[in-house]
Amino acid sequence: MKNSKDKPLILITNDDGFTAPGIMALVEAVEEFGEIMIVAPDSPQSGMGHAITINNPLRIHSTHYFGDHVAFNCSGTPVDCVKIGIYKLAKEKRKPDLILSGINHGSNVSTNVLYSGTMSAAIEGALSSIPSIGFSLLDYSLEADFSVAQHFVKKIVKDALTNPMKEGICLNVNIPKLPLDQIKGIKVGKQARAFWDDTFDERADPLKKNYYWLAGEFHNYDKGEDTDMWALDNAYVSVVPTQYDLTAYDCINELKNQLEE
Amino acid sequence: MKNSKDKPLILITNDDGFTAPGIMALVEAVEEFGEIMIVAPDSPQSGMGHAITINNPLRIHSTHYFGDHVAFNCSGTPVDCVKIGIYKLAKEKRKPDLILSGINHGSNVSTNVLYSGTMSAAIEGALSSIPSIGFSLLDYSLEADFSVAQHFVKKIVKDALTNPMKEGICLNVNIPKLPLDQIKGIKVGKQARAFWDDTFDERADPLKKNYYWLAGEFHNYDKGEDTDMWALDNAYVSVVPTQYDLTAYDCINELKNQLEE
Repeated sequence: MKNSKDKPLILITNDDGFTAPGIMALVEAVEEFGEIMIVAPDSPQSGMGHAITINNPLRIHSTHYFGDHVAFNCSGTPVDCVKIGIYKLAKEKRKPDLILSGINHGSNVSTNVLYSGTMSAAIEGALSSIPSIGFSLLDYSLEADFSVAQHFVKKIVKDALTNPMKEGICLNVNIPKLPLDQIKGIKVGKQARAFWDDTFDERADPLKKNYYWLAGEFHNYDKGEDTDMWALDNAYVSVVPTQYDLTAYDCINELKNQLEE
Repeated sequence: MKNSKDKPLILITNDDGFTAPGIMALVEAVEEFGEIMIVAPDSPQSGMGHAITINNPLRIHSTHYFGDHVAFNCSGTPVDCVKIGIYKLAKEKRKPDLILSGINHGSNVSTNVLYSGTMSAAIEGALSSIPSIGFSLLDYSLEADFSVAQHFVKKIVKDALTNPMKEGICLNVNIPKLPLDQIKGIKVGKQARAFWDDTFDERADPLKKNYYWLAGEFHNYDKGEDTDMWALDNAYVSVVPTQYDLTAYDCINELKNQLEE
């Protein structure tokens, strides 16, 4: 068990569940940089966004799944994992120095940060003033090769441990599914203006009752070359600094005129 | 059944479930303004944030719970309700003109917009370029008196139907638990810099296995008089224009220097 007090404490979670290959790849990539504590969901939690468990209690179980690293699986959401990781499991030690989430099996670009359990875990870290990073690889396969992603995880985590991130910020990192020699580098940009055009696939169950699967297509309406989607389409790793203030500041004055008396 | 083609189509949801008194109060407050369609969760969904249901199918059932109004309950989250409301149930008619969420039983101020199913439903409306408003009353009781809240719902909805909201924006409206004559008016402002200091209440079940309840206190670190929490503490109804771009624009250049080559 790694216990050096000089090493930063790195809390790791994901939204695909603690047995997903992506979180093991993340642990392997960063274990050289600090003391690792894993708190990850005990089942897949894709699409859980910033959900927290308030109407039910949480269960946590210690696991040896990650070898010598301190690790727990948790019955809750990715955000629950971060909360119980910071405020319960790590508390007796110290506040984590860095929170990492992923590596997600699939993209988390643009407005998908809102639906993403991976990125919501990172945003929850930012809400607790802890530097946080969510990593996603654009490959949904369980057999995905994470070695290229690990290369960029190491680079970006090393940077985050050297250059303090502004308080209240986390990073959304998406990595293209390409060999290392075809990736042109890292591009820092903004979330693209892209949205789901939803459809619902209507089916009948064996009792002839209808049910619906959420489907749809994601459309990019943003022609800018400064977005996460542009970066990925052009063979770059995308990094978007992400924050949690949803106030639409440019609408305040007009609304004041309309609604205040 | 209201069917006039001249009337705006108003899609209504909430996160407390379709039987919560708050959604009935919202329907009653706005039925004079348009054709109403209700799509609300079939069970309480507090704290579900922007979660969507992707690993399971959805069920929807028509209900007469709201009298003559077209109404469905849905097995999913508040955001699922908005998606299936827009893209499936209302599609055969037309795109909703306005989406309303609430009236929530309890506050949704500051960073709680991220955890709030009520506000995530409104944000989902904004993502589909439909003017949307989330309403919350600072009273968690099921016996809460919604009459004062209804007064402000009518005023704000009337304004939203008259003055087109900027695309991609929704409103976060919180109403204090006060008699009408003690409310000083409406204040438009920003989300306060306030955060949860979480604790976990540890208990043992009858089999002596531990479980944990999320608890904690919400602390306001924002001394400004332009925030939602200041407005409510000073007997105003708070309105925060809310958007979905989480990019931390002021960090882009520094990160470019650090990470791009």
